Parts: sequence; structure tokens; C-alpha cells
Amino acid sequence: MDIDSTAQDKARFFAGAWGRVKALPGKLKAKVTSTAKSIKRLGQDDPRRLTHSLKVGLALTLVSLLYYARPIYDGFGVSGMWAVLTVVVVFEFTVGGTLSKSLNRGFATFLAGALGLGADYFASLFGKNGEPIVLGILVFLLAAATFSRFFPRIKARYDYGVLIFILTFSLVAVSGYRVNELVVLAHQRLSTIIMGGATCMLISIFVCPVWAGEDLHKAIASNLEKLATYLEGFGGVYFQSSESDGMGTGKSFPQGYKSILNSKSSEESLANFARWEPGHGRFRLRHPWKHYLKIGALARQCAYQIEAINGCIGSDHIQGSEEFKGKIEGSCTRMSAECGKTLKALARSMKTMTDPYSSANTHVENSKAAMKDLKFALKAASLENADLAAILPAATVGSILVEIVKCVEKISEAVHELSQLAHFEKETVEPTVSPEKPPQLLHRGIIQPVLDGDSTANDNVVITIHEIISTDSPENEKACDQHQVPKPGKKIEAL
Amino acid sequence: MDIDSTAQDKARFFAGAWGRVKALPGKLKAKVTSTAKSIKRLGQDDPRRLTHSLKVGLALTLVSLLYYARPIYDGFGVSGMWAVLTVVVVFEFTVGGTLSKSLNRGFATFLAGALGLGADYFASLFGKNGEPIVLGILVFLLAAATFSRFFPRIKARYDYGVLIFILTFSLVAVSGYRVNELVVLAHQRLSTIIMGGATCMLISIFVCPVWAGEDLHKAIASNLEKLATYLEGFGGVYFQSSESDGMGTGKSFPQGYKSILNSKSSEESLANFARWEPGHGRFRLRHPWKHYLKIGALARQCAYQIEAINGCIGSDHIQGSEEFKGKIEGSCTRMSAECGKTLKALARSMKTMTDPYSSANTHVENSKAAMKDLKFALKAASLENADLAAILPAATVGSILVEIVKCVEKISEAVHELSQLAHFEKETVEPTVSPEKPPQLLHRGIIQPVLDGDSTANDNVVITIHEIISTDSPENEKACDQHQVPKPGKKIEAL
Repeated sequence: MDIDSTAQDKARFFAGAWGRVKALPGKLKAKVTSTAKSIKRLGQDDPRRLTHSLKVGLALTLVSLLYYARPIYDGFGVSGMWAVLTVVVVFEFTVGGTLSKSLNRGFATFLAGALGLGADYFASLFGKNGEPIVLGILVFLLAAATFSRFFPRIKARYDYGVLIFILTFSLVAVSGYRVNELVVLAHQRLSTIIMGGATCMLISIFVCPVWAGEDLHKAIASNLEKLATYLEGFGGVYFQSSESDGMGTGKSFPQGYKSILNSKSSEESLANFARWEPGHGRFRLRHPWKHYLKIGALARQCAYQIEAINGCIGSDHIQGSEEFKGKIEGSCTRMSAECGKTLKALARSMKTMTDPYSSANTHVENSKAAMKDLKFALKAASLENADLAAILPAATVGSILVEIVKCVEKISEAVHELSQLAHFEKETVEPTVSPEKPPQLLHRGIIQPVLDGDSTANDNVVITIHEIISTDSPENEKACDQHQVPKPGKKIEAL
Repeated sequence: MDIDSTAQDKARFFAGAWGRVKALPGKLKAKVTSTAKSIKRLGQDDPRRLTHSLKVGLALTLVSLLYYARPIYDGFGVSGMWAVLTVVVVFEFTVGGTLSKSLNRGFATFLAGALGLGADYFASLFGKNGEPIVLGILVFLLAAATFSRFFPRIKARYDYGVLIFILTFSLVAVSGYRVNELVVLAHQRLSTIIMGGATCMLISIFVCPVWAGEDLHKAIASNLEKLATYLEGFGGVYFQSSESDGMGTGKSFPQGYKSILNSKSSEESLANFARWEPGHGRFRLRHPWKHYLKIGALARQCAYQIEAINGCIGSDHIQGSEEFKGKIEGSCTRMSAECGKTLKALARSMKTMTDPYSSANTHVENSKAAMKDLKFALKAASLENADLAAILPAATVGSILVEIVKCVEKISEAVHELSQLAHFEKETVEPTVSPEKPPQLLHRGIIQPVLDGDSTANDNVVITIHEIISTDSPENEKACDQHQVPKPGKKIEAL
């Protein structure tokens, strides 16, 4: 029985193993299919990645010709492989990255080669016995140059150069002990590196170039758009969902803004690369790339506020705040919608590189008017029968929206500054950009919700209308101005 | 006159130039001094940077011996320089970084070398004329491997390996056309690279090692501490400054938490490196490094909320909210202080690697009790003579503090999980860790501010006391429990 059961076990084991082996091609097929799919998705996300791979292949194949073509080979010798090495190491995704690495590599090699030759000559003065000791000390001292890589400014722009400098100096200083024709060798190495670097630079600039500057420009504009999408949709979704089921779960909000929270490092590296690039397309050589970082930082600030709002929405599980919500719905929805429109206008003006003055400023002013409306609505809200704990979440949303309005105003100022620095075109076709919004219509929209939502307090309608009149006629403004936020338009004109 | 004035101009010009030249040494001295100072500061910030530079020097000098010692030179030939190259390129600041690069480089070189030899053999089948064409096509195809560097998982861990793979394959495949003793060359290159890599690995592990894992551990703990510092100080500064001058400008708050906002990329790279490291100190080989990223993300979430609070404080310029502020001061101050204490306890438990169960849980429970107090205070607050716009900033601060309490609770859960996964020691010396806070004393502290601040509403004092009793005796809890946030302690025990 025992033997029999063992045999059965064995048979079962082998059957199982065979089953697994038979299933293997299926699994392998599934694995291959899924890999292929993810490759396809990666390519579709950004087709320039595929182009980049082909460009690297082209550069490598071209440089390999250095080895194949015999006359060049006889000239360069084994150094030809430095060209291949240079291509692989130096070819980056963006033009700026490639230029930065190529130029760093070229200059560092030249400088370190010259210094290495000097070190060799200096060491040779100490005789055959002293030479290795002196060279060893020099190499050790030079490695202290590693320390300079910790400086933030050097790390950002010349990190690769310092690396290559140390590398070349060590190689030249050390190999000098063996190779007598060091000058010839250094010359060969430098020229092959220049050939490799030049191939990379030419291919990256002229074959489907990927400009870091353009990427940065687009990334910042698209970040503004993501914020705009959230803010434009916010009012409707938040107040409607809470009316229907009393729960704003925050699930139906577009979560695109979350990618902005951690965008700092990628923006900084793009700005670093962009500075190495020549003028391209609509960007000139000394385009104010640093200014984009300022706009990016403000957009992140705005995204932090939105993150806080998003948190508030999820916790909005207290019933009975509907009445209060109704009171602030109008002004809050308008604040967030106008902020969204401002950001959309700014993003559009960045994309078309036109001055955003008139289109964005209208929306900024509208959002500030809505902010004042909210203050009046809050002042007039009757709280005798409402408890504060219930209205707190909605009030917090309103309060953070006020911060967002201020933040959007700062973004608007920053984009205005950029348009001055980068000489954006003046908007000439202004009426076609925003034909559907004469200011009168918007102001009429401000009055209505207060009348609808709050039927008991008649006096605050009067106040609201007074407010609107004051916004239309600037000379009355001081009389009832409540907050002294500077207007972006005026500031910009003084620049 | 004309000539005379020209002569005077010239004289003035030269005098000016001479002045500038005379001033030059002074300027140079100032420049050198400032550079020296910034070097000193950089070294003082993290003395390990200086050590790192010396370690690189040591490794380079050691490897240079490969070139100098004649017997080894005869064995390895020019390939000896690959050892120098490997050291310069591979030596990173952390042990994990060095290991990751060394191993990537070693395996990629081996694999690509073997494949390159195969490609050479395959190409040689096509005769002398076909060979370069076939090799060119193969190199071009291989460059498509560049595409794999866009996969996030490969980019995170094997980016350098893929680079070296492409590099070595191209070199071997291309040079095969010239050098007949390819196998010997490949063997030499591989062994010199292994020697260089091994030197780097040994020096980085045994000479003043900088462990990425330890850095990550410390960075997360210090982030929790930064949050704690802000929260512990918050209540006092916010409510006191507004009492004295009616303006909470937020200037006196410690701004250390701001560095957490952008900590994601550095934490991720440290976690990536940490996975390559062997067990060290109190960390074993399979330490749950990934879990630190979870705690880091929660800490960032908390930092976003603090950023929103910080924004609210700056805008708190409306007078007349003092009465309301006084009402919520007690509970808000306690909420933020208890959150701070929780985070301090969690940070301490991470640093000492002891289980944070008892010390942190008390504070979490206290902060939740304070949160309930806030709700009661809000419910009982009389709002007949206060207008909502004035109390909004303070109310928003309270509302965001509620979010922070929830976030801190999540952080506490995550640290509990970490302590389970990483087998932290059980706290045995509990009484000495928090000797000054018996729970009774804390609960007595909850009652007082409500009595002091609010002399008109006697009934809410009764409610508060009822609440405190219910917290002490869990069986009464359901009767007045308002929110169902799961308790971290219970969850952890079920893990």
C-alpha cells in the first residue's frame, strides 16, 4: 500500500509538473502579450520616446563607421572606441541634456588632459622612483574635486563635467607612466570625443528634436490647465453632489492636479537643460527660463490649497448644512469658476505666447468681486438656528477658495511678468478670444443667487448691488474697499 | 582745449583702470574668502561629504596601482584603465548607490560582452563584406534597448545597467571587426572592472560607510519631528499673537516643515538604494524600506495641510473674532499640541526602534478627545452677535486641525505597521518614557479652558465632562460616539 501510494504520489507529481510545463507556453504568451502591451502604451504616451531610441541607434551606427572605415581607423587607433562610448553616455532625451553633457564632456576632457600632461611633466622631475609617488599624491588630491559636486550650483550644471574631469585627469596622469606618446594619445582621444559629441548634438538638434525648453513651457501651461479643470468643475460637483445625497465624496473630481504636487524636481531639471539650448521655435536664446520655475512654484502652492479642499470634501459627512451651503453656493461656485477661467486664459496665452492682459484680468476681477460677495453673504447669513459644527466644512471650503483666489492672482501676475520678459505678442484679436462675456452679464449673475437663496434678509441685496456698482466705477472704490490686494494690471504697467 | 580735455579723459580713464587693478587683489581675496567659507559651511552641514571625497581619493589611488605594478600591467594591458574609469563612475555617496552601480555595471558588462561575442560570431558567418552591414544592423537594433530605460521600474533600479549593456555590446561588436583576441580582451576588461568595482564596494562598506537605509530612516523620523515642532508651537503662537496685536502673521512659526513638501524624489531614491544594501546596524537585509515611503507620503499629506493653515494665518486680518477665538482656543491648542506629541513620540520610537504603541496611542486618543471638545465648543458657541466672516479664519484653522488629527492618526497607524514589519523592540521602560503625563492630569486639563473662556454657557461644561467620562470608560463610548474613526491600536493587534 505504501509503495503504491508513493507511486501514485509520484504519478500525481509528474502529472502536475507536466501540467505546469504544458501551461508554461500559455503563461509565457500572456507575459509576452502584457509586456508588449505596456511597451505599446509607453510608446503611445509619448511617441518621442520611440523616436529617441531610433536616434540613439542612428548615432551609434554612424559613429561605428569610425571603426570600420580603415583610413580613419589608422588615424585614430583604439581611441575610436571613445567615440562610441561618448555617444552612449552623452545622448539624452532632450536637446538641452545632450548639449549640456557633450559640452561638459568636451571641455572637461580638454582641461583635464592639459592638466594631466602638466602633472606628468611635474612628476617626471622627481625621477623614476619619485614619479609614481608624486602622481599618486596628485590623483589623491584631485579626487578632492569630488567635493565640489556637493555645491548645489555646480551639481545642477556641471556635475557631469567634474566627473569627466576627474576621470580624464586620472587616466592621463596614470597612463603617462606607461605611454610615451601621451600628447598624440590625448589629441586622438579629444578628437574622437569631439566627433562623438558632435554627432550626438547634430542628430539631437536636427532629427526630431525634443527641446527641454519647449517641454518646460508646455508642462507649466498644462499644470495651469489641470488646476483650471479642477476649479471649473469644483463648484458644480461639490454643491450638487451634496444636494443630492448629502455626501461630497470627492471621487468624481478630476485628480490631475495631484501630479503638480511633486513636479518640482522635473521642472528644475528641465529649466537647467533649457539654458543650454540655442533659440528654437518661438523661444530665443536668452528666454527667461528661470521665471517658469516661479510660476511652477505658485502653481504648486495652488495645488496644495486644492489638496486641502479635497481633504475637506471627504470629511463632509455632517448633515444639516444644506441651508448654509445654499447661501454661499453662488459666490463660491463663481469664485472657483472664475479662478478656473483665469487659469485657462493664462494657459492659453502661454500656449499661443500672447499677452494675457485683457482676457485674464477680467476673470481675476470677477473672482475678486465674487470673493467680496462671499464676505457679504457670510456677514448676512442668519446663524441663529444653525450650529457652527455643521456649517464648518462648507465654510472652510469657502475660506480656502479665498486663498486660492489670492494665489491665482499671484499666478496671473507672474505670467504677466513672463509675458513682459519674453516679449509675448500683444493680444490684437481680443474680442474673438472672449466674445461671450461682456462684464455686465457677469455682474448680473452676481446678484441673483443672493436673492434666491436668502429670502428673509432684504438689506444684504442692497449691499451687494452697491458693491457691484463700486467695482464698475473705480473712483468710488476707496469708499467701500475692504481689502487692499494689489491689482496685477497696474503693477505690470509700472514694470 | 579739446586735446587737453581728451588727455584729461585719458588720464582719468587710466587712473580708474589702475584703481580697478589695484582693487583686484582685494576683490579676489574677498571672493576666495567667501568661497572658502561656503566650502567650510558645506563641510560642516554634513561632514560625511569630506569623508566621501577622501574615500574616492583612496579608491582611485589604490586602483592606480594596477597601472603601476608591472606584473599586473603585463597581465591586463591597457584594460587597466577600465578599473580607473569604473572607480570614478561607480563611486557614489551612499553604500547602496555604489553597490547598485557596481553590480549593474558588472552584470551588464558580462551579459553584453557575451552577447557581443555571439553577435561577432553570427556576423562572421556572412563573410568579410556582409559582416560590417550585419553588425551595423545589430548595433542599431540594440540601441532600441534605450527604450527600456523609459519603463519606470527599470529606470529606478537598472537604468545604469542598461546604459552599460548598450555601451559594452557596441564596443565588443564593433571592435570585434579589428581585434582577433576578443575573448582575451573581454576577459581582461571584465576582470579589471570587477577589481575596480570591488575596490569601490569594499571601501564604501568598510571605511566610514554612509548607508542609504539609515539616511532614509533618519530622514523620515526627522520629518515627523519637523511636523511635531510646528504643531506643538502652533497653538501658543497663533492664539497668543492674535490676542496681543490682532494679527497672526505666521512669521514666528518654524518653517522647517516646508522642506517636507518636496521630499518625494529624495526619499524614493534613498529607498531604491537601500534595497541594494546588506544588513547594517539595526537594519536587517530585508528591512521593509518600501513602507518608509508610505510614512513619507503621509507626512507630506500632513505638511500640505500645515501649508494651508499657514496660508490662513497670514490672511487673518479681520478684527472682532477674538471672542470666538477664545472659545475654540482650548480645544484647538490641545489638538495641535497632542498631534505634536504623537509625532514626537513616533519619531522617538523610530529613532530608538521601539514599538510606539503605548506612548503614541495616549496622545492620539487625547487629540481625538480634543477634537470632540472642539465640536462641542462649536455647537455651543453663541453666534447671535458675531458675524461669520470674522470668525471664518479661526474656524478654518480649527477645521484643518481636524484633518491634521486624522492624518496624524494615519501616520501613527503606519508607524505601528512598520514596527510590526521591522520587528521593533517592545517598549519595556514605558513609565520612564512618559513619566510626567498620567492620563488623569491630561483630562483635568481638558475641562479648564472651557470653564475659563466661556462664562455664559454653563450647559456645555456638563457635556464636556460627560465626554471625558465616556473616554475613560469604553463601555459608555457608543452612547455618545460621533465619528467612527478606527483605533490604530486595535487594527495593529489584528495584523
